[in-house]
Amino acid sequence: MRAPFEEMKREFERVLRNRGFSPERAARCAAIFAENSLVGVASHGLNRFPGFIEFVERGLVKPEVEAELVSSFGAWEQWDGNLGPGPLNAYQCTEQAMTLARQHGVGCVGLRNTNHWMRGGYFGWQAAQAGFALIAWTNTKPNAPAWGGLDPRIGNNPLVLAVPNDAAPVVLDMAMTQFSIGRMETARRSGATLPVPGGYDAAGNLSQDPAAILEANRALPIGYWKGSGLAVLLDLVAVLVSGGLATHEIGQRETEYGVAQVFIAFDVTQGSSAALVNQAVEGVIADLRTATPVAPDDEVLYPGERALRTRHENMAHGIPVEPAIWERVLAM
Amino acid sequence: MRAPFEEMKREFERVLRNRGFSPERAARCAAIFAENSLVGVASHGLNRFPGFIEFVERGLVKPEVEAELVSSFGAWEQWDGNLGPGPLNAYQCTEQAMTLARQHGVGCVGLRNTNHWMRGGYFGWQAAQAGFALIAWTNTKPNAPAWGGLDPRIGNNPLVLAVPNDAAPVVLDMAMTQFSIGRMETARRSGATLPVPGGYDAAGNLSQDPAAILEANRALPIGYWKGSGLAVLLDLVAVLVSGGLATHEIGQRETEYGVAQVFIAFDVTQGSSAALVNQAVEGVIADLRTATPVAPDDEVLYPGERALRTRHENMAHGIPVEPAIWERVLAM
Repeated sequence: MRAPFEEMKREFERVLRNRGFSPERAARCAAIFAENSLVGVASHGLNRFPGFIEFVERGLVKPEVEAELVSSFGAWEQWDGNLGPGPLNAYQCTEQAMTLARQHGVGCVGLRNTNHWMRGGYFGWQAAQAGFALIAWTNTKPNAPAWGGLDPRIGNNPLVLAVPNDAAPVVLDMAMTQFSIGRMETARRSGATLPVPGGYDAAGNLSQDPAAILEANRALPIGYWKGSGLAVLLDLVAVLVSGGLATHEIGQRETEYGVAQVFIAFDVTQGSSAALVNQAVEGVIADLRTATPVAPDDEVLYPGERALRTRHENMAHGIPVEPAIWERVLAM
Repeated sequence: MRAPFEEMKREFERVLRNRGFSPERAARCAAIFAENSLVGVASHGLNRFPGFIEFVERGLVKPEVEAELVSSFGAWEQWDGNLGPGPLNAYQCTEQAMTLARQHGVGCVGLRNTNHWMRGGYFGWQAAQAGFALIAWTNTKPNAPAWGGLDPRIGNNPLVLAVPNDAAPVVLDMAMTQFSIGRMETARRSGATLPVPGGYDAAGNLSQDPAAILEANRALPIGYWKGSGLAVLLDLVAVLVSGGLATHEIGQRETEYGVAQVFIAFDVTQGSSAALVNQAVEGVIADLRTATPVAPDDEVLYPGERALRTRHENMAHGIPVEPAIWERVLAM
C-alpha cells in the first residue's frame, strides 16, 4: 500500500491543526514528518506520528511554544526549547546556527529542554541545501548499556554531519547503536532478521534477532566500546553547550522529553567558492565510485545517496505505508 | 623492560635537537611523544618515533616550520601547517581554537597541509585541562575500504571529543576503524588475537587475526556502514573547513603527508560556572558507575579513565617498552 507524498503531508497538517498547531507551524511540522517517510525513514515519519500526537495530547509536546534565546556568547548561543515540538525547535535552531555562521564563519546553537527531533538527517539536508556544512546531534533517554554494563546507561544519541553539493548534498545520520530502536521494532513487526548483530540476547550472546535484543534491552553500540564512548561524550558536550539535561537525568522522567541538542553550522563558501566546494565534494564521491565492489552487484554509495534514490522512487510511486498505521492517521 | 618517563622524554628531546628542532620545539614535541607512551599508546609514542624521525630526515616533516594563518572569518580560521611537525601544529591550533573560543564562545581552526598528529587524545587533554570542551579530528591516507568496496578508499580519520572536569577530564580518542593500523601491527608483532573482529581476511570472512586483516588490507569500520559513512563525512568537513587535501588526494602521494585537521573549542565556562561544569560531568560519571557489570569483574569505565590509570602506573614504575625499539632510539 502506498500513499502519495502530498496526501500524507495534507493529512498530517490536518491532524496537527486540530491539535492546536497554527497553520504555518502545522504545515512545517507536517512537511518534516512526510519528508521523513518519503526518504524511507517511516520509523521517524508516519510510524512515529501517532506517538507524537499522543505526546501533544498528554501535554509533553506543546504545539504553540517556540524556542527562545537564553544566552549569547558571540558565535555560540544557548536556546531553551520550552518543550515545544522537537522538529520545529530543531528547524529553528538549524536556521539560527546558519545565521550565526554567516556573521562569524562558524555558528553554534545549544538547545535544551526540547523534544525528539524525529529524523536528524532532515536538518542536515536543510543546512546543506542552504550551502552550509552542519554537525548536529541530540541526546536521548538511556536506551543501551554502556560498554561493560548490562543495564541501559547511554543514549543512542543520533549524530548528523552534512556538506553542501549542488548535485546532491552528502548527509550522514547515524545513531550510536548499530540499529535504532525504531529500526529494530520495524524488523520485529515484519519478522526480519538483522543483517549484522544488533545487540545481546537474554543469555548474553550477540544476536541478530530484533525481538530477543529488544526483550533483553541490550542494544549494541557501533564498534562495541567505541560507540559507547562516543555516546557518553556527545551527551556531555550537549549538556555543556546547551545547559540542558544529561541522558541519565532524562531517564529519571516517566518518558523521554526535554532532551539536549547541538547545531554547529559552517558557512563554507566563506572559505572557498561554491564551485570549489562542489568540486571538492564531487571529487570524494567520484573516488568512492572507483572502488571494486565486494560482490558484482554491490556498490559503494555515499551517505545520503540511498535516501535520495528512495525519495525519487516514492515521489513517483507513492510512499509505502503500513496500512493499520496509515488508516489510524486518516481516522484521527 | 620499562623506561622512566623523564628519561624517555630526554632521549626524544636529544634526538629531535640533533635533527634540527630548536630547544623549545624539541622539548614540546618530545613531551607529546613521551606522554603518548606514558598513557599506554606506544603505537603513537615510542614505537612511532623512529618513523617520525625518518620523515624528518626525508624532508617530509620540516622541523622549524610553523603553522600560519591563511584566512579568518571571525570564529573560524584556516591555517596552513606548511608540512611542519604534526604534533606541534596540532598543539598550536588547539591553543588557537581556545583563543578564538574565549572571544566568540566557540572557536574553530581548520588546519591543512599538516602531518600526522600522533595521538589525537593529547590535544583533548590539552584543551580539557585548560577548561575547554574540544571536538577535533584528522583525515588520513586511505587505509580501509568504504562499505561495499574491497580496496581502501576511506581514512580511519581519528576523532577526539573532550570535556573538562577538575578531578579528571573525559577524553575520547577513536579511529573510524575498529582497530587502528598501529594497534593491529602491535598485535601482530606479539602474536595476539583481536578481542572482536577487526576486518576481513583474504577470503572475505570477518577475522580476529591482525596478520590476516593487514595482509588483505581490509580493516573494518566501526559499526560496518556507519563508521564508513562517518569517515567520509569527517574527511569532507575537514576538507571544506581547512581548505586542505581529501583522503583520496593524500592517497596519490608516495606516503602520508599533508593531511587536514579540524579543532573546535568551546569556552564552556561562559555557559555555566566551572563548579557547575564539574558537577554535570561528575553526574554522568557517577551514573555510569551504577551500572550492573556484565561479569562480576567487569567495570564500566568513562572514556579516558583507563589512560589515566595507565599513566599513574607507568609514572610510578616506568613505561613498558619494546627493547629493540627503545635501544634503537637510544642509539640515534
